[in-house]
Amino acid sequence: MSLLSSTVAAIGPADAAAAAQARDRQARMTKPAGSLGVLEDLSIRLAGLAGQCPPPLPEPAAVAVFAGDHGVHAQGVTPWPQEVTGQMVANFLAGGAVVNAFAAQVGAAVTVVDVGVAVAPAAGAGLLERNVRRGTRDMTVEPAMTRDEAIAAIEVGIAVAGELVDAGHRALLTGDMGIANTTASAALVAAFTGADAAAVTGAGTGIDAETLAHKTEVVRRALARHDLDADDPIGVLAAVGGLEHAAIAGLVLGGAARRVPVILDGVIAGSATLVAAALAPDCLDAVVAGHRSTEPGHGVALDHLGLTPLVDLSLRLGEGTGAVLALPLVQAGVRALRDVATFDSAGVTEKQ
Amino acid sequence: MSLLSSTVAAIGPADAAAAAQARDRQARMTKPAGSLGVLEDLSIRLAGLAGQCPPPLPEPAAVAVFAGDHGVHAQGVTPWPQEVTGQMVANFLAGGAVVNAFAAQVGAAVTVVDVGVAVAPAAGAGLLERNVRRGTRDMTVEPAMTRDEAIAAIEVGIAVAGELVDAGHRALLTGDMGIANTTASAALVAAFTGADAAAVTGAGTGIDAETLAHKTEVVRRALARHDLDADDPIGVLAAVGGLEHAAIAGLVLGGAARRVPVILDGVIAGSATLVAAALAPDCLDAVVAGHRSTEPGHGVALDHLGLTPLVDLSLRLGEGTGAVLALPLVQAGVRALRDVATFDSAGVTEKQ
Repeated sequence: MSLLSSTVAAIGPADAAAAAQARDRQARMTKPAGSLGVLEDLSIRLAGLAGQCPPPLPEPAAVAVFAGDHGVHAQGVTPWPQEVTGQMVANFLAGGAVVNAFAAQVGAAVTVVDVGVAVAPAAGAGLLERNVRRGTRDMTVEPAMTRDEAIAAIEVGIAVAGELVDAGHRALLTGDMGIANTTASAALVAAFTGADAAAVTGAGTGIDAETLAHKTEVVRRALARHDLDADDPIGVLAAVGGLEHAAIAGLVLGGAARRVPVILDGVIAGSATLVAAALAPDCLDAVVAGHRSTEPGHGVALDHLGLTPLVDLSLRLGEGTGAVLALPLVQAGVRALRDVATFDSAGVTEKQ
Repeated sequence: MSLLSSTVAAIGPADAAAAAQARDRQARMTKPAGSLGVLEDLSIRLAGLAGQCPPPLPEPAAVAVFAGDHGVHAQGVTPWPQEVTGQMVANFLAGGAVVNAFAAQVGAAVTVVDVGVAVAPAAGAGLLERNVRRGTRDMTVEPAMTRDEAIAAIEVGIAVAGELVDAGHRALLTGDMGIANTTASAALVAAFTGADAAAVTGAGTGIDAETLAHKTEVVRRALARHDLDADDPIGVLAAVGGLEHAAIAGLVLGGAARRVPVILDGVIAGSATLVAAALAPDCLDAVVAGHRSTEPGHGVALDHLGLTPLVDLSLRLGEGTGAVLALPLVQAGVRALRDVATFDSAGVTEKQ
């Protein structure tokens, strides 16, 4: 059995008994019932995922930044040159990017994975060299990847999830780097949700109205070029996705199989999770939507997945930055379930 | 000169040159300009507050939980008995409350201040005994405090801010505990913003529709009982406020005078900051709205103050929990401004 098949087979439903225990404990903690809002529900979900109440504290945490390039860059969808992907990989390894600063602040490790960079990055501490292909093909002309390449890139993500969990990490965060990857994300979201290209294509890192109109048209052409069937998620991913999208889908599946929470970053992660959820719907029990980016396709993807983001600060950077910001919130929610006294134990009078 | 007067006099405008330096640096950092959204603006504001770019990292941080009781409790505005205020003070000191769990998770210290608890709490590690009065009077019958009591409680907050900054803290977070204190908050918000009692009175920790209607009527009666003038903030505070509201207003003023950021929790902090801003409008340069609670008066207060909250997770607990959740976001925003490489320094190509 392939790594992908065995991973999908290992993903099971949440443990309802553990979730019920968590719900009961939340009602007895020294606070008004329900007063922790979204974090109360989240702690109950994570108890169900872990199969125990309280669930383990989601730390230490690791953000896996998957880097890849895109053949559709040739269509002029972004003002950033393709070489920036590799340059930013070097910046991540040197600790100079925003994800490094955010991760240092919250105590998360950063692992950089070359799954599809066009030009081989120089080796560096923290770099995992797992390149499947030096950039995808242009999806407006031909499938971005073969099915085998797409599966290989998914399996990179599954393997990285396994290695990070084996190393002791108890929360996995998605990160990405890839010039033009919001174009592939838009195509994936449209293919899986049925939304129009115009509803899911956004300004990415920041483009003018003319470029946005062109980018939307490129997405529309790519969608028309292929015979996309949402019931064949590997086929959709191979046709219009990216290597880093595939790897992130794999990270989600790998985390879910190990029953470790996976905190999503922005639209690249949201679109990749559409692939993962189509392959193994129960994987969503492990998924926490870290933030909502300004990219319109991100909201469409999250709505389709039934996920509510924790942080909404108009970020549009990627790299895993939004997931990293959400990490302390997730940890605090679990910490409360683990540590807070009950009315009985603290001798606090309940309401009348 | 009184401590209040000298503190108000020490609060000056933000440093425009430091803010401009921060804005310029954000534009040269290895990320698309503007892609950090709200955190980009926040880091620029905090540079202006500190008068230097980059500003100091806002850590270590301390949350000051001011506890007080309310004479209006006698009007039946809440199902929680008044004794819970003191019991929760003991719970904070024992480390058993949600604010303790959250603060432990993000590395913040918790200081508990008895500024107005009805029954003297037992001494405990971390308790500051600064009681001004053992609970306010019933504002539907008479002013909740005398002017002198209100000023004394503000000065408790100023003094605590000074002590925490002297001890090395570089971020102050507001916390509160006081059964019935959302009733006083609603009255303060109505008095300062002109909003109707029904628009600012909420379910607090959770009450039924009948109790909410009664609570709204109590707020309306309190507002009608006094001759409230928003241009006399001490008078308004004394008439319908709480001792913990006064102390939080003092913490805001004290932090602003020392040019240290103050992260607000929910509606108690929001209503208290209306008092502080009326006394010294420039204090708002130091203020960060930590979160948006479900209490309707909170949104009204934040809108009036022109503040946008960082976290919005349907919390309605108080204690400082929402402020504590926002702390890592504030720290991450400043950390990025301090640590992230520029396009030049990292050798990353800019967009074309």
